[in-house]
Amino acid sequence: MPIRRSRASTPIALLTDFGYRDHYAGVLRGVIASIAPTAPVIDITHGIPAQSVTAGALLLRESWRYFPKRTIFVAVVDPGVGTARRPIVIETSSGARFIGPDNGVLWPGAEQAGYRRAVELRFARYRLQEVSSTFHGRDIFAPAAAHLWLGTPLKTLGPALGQVEKLGLGKVEELSGELRGSIIYVDGFGNLVTNIDRRIFDRFSACFPSQTLFVTIDDGSPIELYDTYGDAPEGTLLALFGSFQMLEIAVREGSAAERLAVPTGATVTVRVKR
Amino acid sequence: MPIRRSRASTPIALLTDFGYRDHYAGVLRGVIASIAPTAPVIDITHGIPAQSVTAGALLLRESWRYFPKRTIFVAVVDPGVGTARRPIVIETSSGARFIGPDNGVLWPGAEQAGYRRAVELRFARYRLQEVSSTFHGRDIFAPAAAHLWLGTPLKTLGPALGQVEKLGLGKVEELSGELRGSIIYVDGFGNLVTNIDRRIFDRFSACFPSQTLFVTIDDGSPIELYDTYGDAPEGTLLALFGSFQMLEIAVREGSAAERLAVPTGATVTVRVKR
Amino acid sequence: MPIRRSRASTPIALLTDFGYRDHYAGVLRGVIASIAPTAPVIDITHGIPAQSVTAGALLLRESWRYFPKRTIFVAVVDPGVGTARRPIVIETSSGARFIGPDNGVLWPGAEQAGYRRAVELRFARYRLQEVSSTFHGRDIFAPAAAHLWLGTPLKTLGPALGQVEKLGLGKVEELSGELRGSIIYVDGFGNLVTNIDRRIFDRFSACFPSQTLFVTIDDGSPIELYDTYGDAPEGTLLALFGSFQMLEIAVREGSAAERLAVPTGATVTVRVKR
Repeated sequence: MPIRRSRASTPIALLTDFGYRDHYAGVLRGVIASIAPTAPVIDITHGIPAQSVTAGALLLRESWRYFPKRTIFVAVVDPGVGTARRPIVIETSSGARFIGPDNGVLWPGAEQAGYRRAVELRFARYRLQEVSSTFHGRDIFAPAAAHLWLGTPLKTLGPALGQVEKLGLGKVEELSGELRGSIIYVDGFGNLVTNIDRRIFDRFSACFPSQTLFVTIDDGSPIELYDTYGDAPEGTLLALFGSFQMLEIAVREGSAAERLAVPTGATVTVRVKR
Repeated sequence: MPIRRSRASTPIALLTDFGYRDHYAGVLRGVIASIAPTAPVIDITHGIPAQSVTAGALLLRESWRYFPKRTIFVAVVDPGVGTARRPIVIETSSGARFIGPDNGVLWPGAEQAGYRRAVELRFARYRLQEVSSTFHGRDIFAPAAAHLWLGTPLKTLGPALGQVEKLGLGKVEELSGELRGSIIYVDGFGNLVTNIDRRIFDRFSACFPSQTLFVTIDDGSPIELYDTYGDAPEGTLLALFGSFQMLEIAVREGSAAERLAVPTGATVTVRVKR
Repeated sequence: MPIRRSRASTPIALLTDFGYRDHYAGVLRGVIASIAPTAPVIDITHGIPAQSVTAGALLLRESWRYFPKRTIFVAVVDPGVGTARRPIVIETSSGARFIGPDNGVLWPGAEQAGYRRAVELRFARYRLQEVSSTFHGRDIFAPAAAHLWLGTPLKTLGPALGQVEKLGLGKVEELSGELRGSIIYVDGFGNLVTNIDRRIFDRFSACFPSQTLFVTIDDGSPIELYDTYGDAPEGTLLALFGSFQMLEIAVREGSAAERLAVPTGATVTVRVKR
């Protein structure tokens, strides 16, 4: 039976800000194993900075397309746990499902995967018997993922939602001869990730076909654009499209975050060299 | 054959202070995979503060009941490795099995799961061929877990033990109009976890039916009790029953540990407001 | 079919410097699950210090023999990503396969496992469709591991290599009455791991049968040799063969790194007591 086989190998993928000190992430897996013992579970990361919805949303968006088609993503970055924000599941046209709080953390990934519809995880039957006020990952989201994996139809999990919270990754402006965005994430290697994606960048650079572009952060010293680390001498500060879909500022074999010490939110400008 | 199927989906769950820098936790999984290649393994956490038996014991106790019934827990927080302390496995009436050093780390969980009996992991046949003096997780505990998972009966693993080391989580005193415990753990979000459990708290608060209770740490400023984060304004310092079975001191969307900087061991008092 | 069954339980084991903050390690697993959905994957660690090829090489060498025979190891510590360094896979006589950059990180493990031959991972068919300049783990190494696991023969993955990069763990000198090596790694417990392995040590100590040996770091105070932690009082600074194949400097129930604050590279000398 090909359908069952395909389900058997569909993973549940977890992305949270629970960290690695505590038992929280492990308990999610315990709950899933209790309900759906053979569901494969993959930890994307539990190292999202505490309560940073934007970082969670960005890394989820950068991850989902590398997973099997029908993967069930559980993303829990949830500063509003215990408040009125709704627990939801989103279905997308690409097949991926997204479970988490309705605070925007799911949106950038779900939008890219082709948002189709969402339901609120409201029915007690698909939650743990006792629901705490602070750990909906364990009590609501993990059980929902396990039931979804087992084949429970979306609409059985809760009532349909008219709309869900959206989250943008910050404005990118095209001015005369300038493209202006911001730093939205600093990764573990110290790479500064901007919200300037390749599509926008390519459209902008196409307007200046024979000219050299460079990048500044908060109007500081110009940073050169490279195609790859390999083209730059060791220790060079450079801008490039790396593993993200976004323009990054990096140091070859070093840390741009250490070198520049600029905060998330700093302005990044791409300009034409004159 | 339902029995074999149930075994196939029984996980081995790991909780250690090995950290994430080194290969130690991965090697446990390698050893298990070498002996019981199809055993599902779940990492609860490897981030227990180094050699903190109490933290390990607490998180194991908070985790076990969210896992499948027959889960084999391997908990290695083992400051006495290489000394005379015994390696043991405990069987409980709820079905859960607990493997680790006999230093109390298994006790609070095993007690709650219904301690039934224990054996010492003494037989060389169920250890790796060479047993180092410092890494019993790899050489004794992981092999024992794998053999237990494969169906080796408890008594085959070693001789029965008359008793095992017990570990309490600290005294909680009920004085006149006061309940006094202590902070026993600080989690990764900065929540201060006390040893005052809900049962004791409820019994105490039932004596003051129409009165308001509050909490102090080391007789500092009063901290209000809330049912959930959602009831408190952002940034409020509050006391609540969160995801632990214990009273916690927390800051909504913040870190109580950063706010208060009180150490583990500080006195926590619940009092009636007058 | 025993052969297929054995493949089903052969793990792919990952060791990287990707850290736990980001999605990078999770994405490796997503890629593997997309290509080989039933391949078991084990994270050895993603906590190798950023771009520390020696640390990665050491921990891989210390890990491989605790895994099932045919394990496919993927080790990505890759400061030269995006440069001309080659992506490779090594086959060994013990059965283990090693995938990663050809910068030496695979060598100490592969040599110990019995280096047999290597190929360059050059064929686009076994890579992701788009190969970034900075994330070969995702785009080249993870797909190669998945295809190898599925049974793709080595030679189909790329052209044979005449030789691969070798990496030593530093020189150990035997002088008159002295054995001199260095500290090559500090683990998460603060143990200082040297490059003096047991074979060399035993040969040296056999020359002084009735005499006591001791250890110094950078010619500092003498450190006593012990067989096990259990023989030393709590808090003692000691030298011993612990879980590594190498001589370590440790503190019983403490951290030698905190106590001594010596850097990687410091000279370690074993001498005869007079």
